[in-house]
Amino acid sequence: MVPVPAPDLETHLDPAIAARLKRNADGLVAAIVREHGTGDVLMMAWMDDEALHRTLTTGRATYWSRSRGEYWVKGATSGHHQYVRGVALDCDGDALLVTVEQVGPACHTGTHSCFTDELPVGGVAR
Amino acid sequence: MVPVPAPDLETHLDPAIAARLKRNADGLVAAIVREHGTGDVLMMAWMDDEALHRTLTTGRATYWSRSRGEYWVKGATSGHHQYVRGVALDCDGDALLVTVEQVGPACHTGTHSCFTDELPVGGVAR
Repeated sequence: MVPVPAPDLETHLDPAIAARLKRNADGLVAAIVREHGTGDVLMMAWMDDEALHRTLTTGRATYWSRSRGEYWVKGATSGHHQYVRGVALDCDGDALLVTVEQVGPACHTGTHSCFTDELPVGGVAR
Repeated sequence: MVPVPAPDLETHLDPAIAARLKRNADGLVAAIVREHGTGDVLMMAWMDDEALHRTLTTGRATYWSRSRGEYWVKGATSGHHQYVRGVALDCDGDALLVTVEQVGPACHTGTHSCFTDELPVGGVAR
């Protein structure tokens, strides 16, 4: 996959919020998605200013698809909607924690969470 | 902050795991850090192959610091150690979910989690 940079379009994101974002070279911040209620971490996706604006104002999780080069309202094609219950920015402004009510599986593979590939951890116990 | 790409050093990461990673242009994957027990999302950091290898084999969360351009064993200077209880890779190989026992606050600002800046969410309720 060759990432497509987010478009340099005019956004309606509140300038006070925009000023707190630290975007990567493609103009994006990471969005970590957590399930309301269970607290399960479901997936990670990416937002530019406009995707964040749409997420905050519509209450529907909206990402920037780096592979397709377009905005992506989660569930628009799959029906696996994400209704946003909260969004928090981290201390250095490059990651968002998005709390959602998830309809159906969050992962395009059909699993509840995208994080299903457990790696072996060794080393010293505490 | 100008990100420093991870070094192109020889790593001892298991080739079967390395083959599943989809690194960004700087050779990094995102590491989402979750607290064992509470499930709280604490922070996001970055790992290259060698940081992941060290994390998996030592059981101590180890990241690549993009600002300092060096490996960073969480807690080495602050005492706020992270003892790794699990690591899972996501479906497209560009994000890790690291479950840790966190000693003290995870955030360098002194808060439990880095995600403390709540943004206003409006829009239609479900």
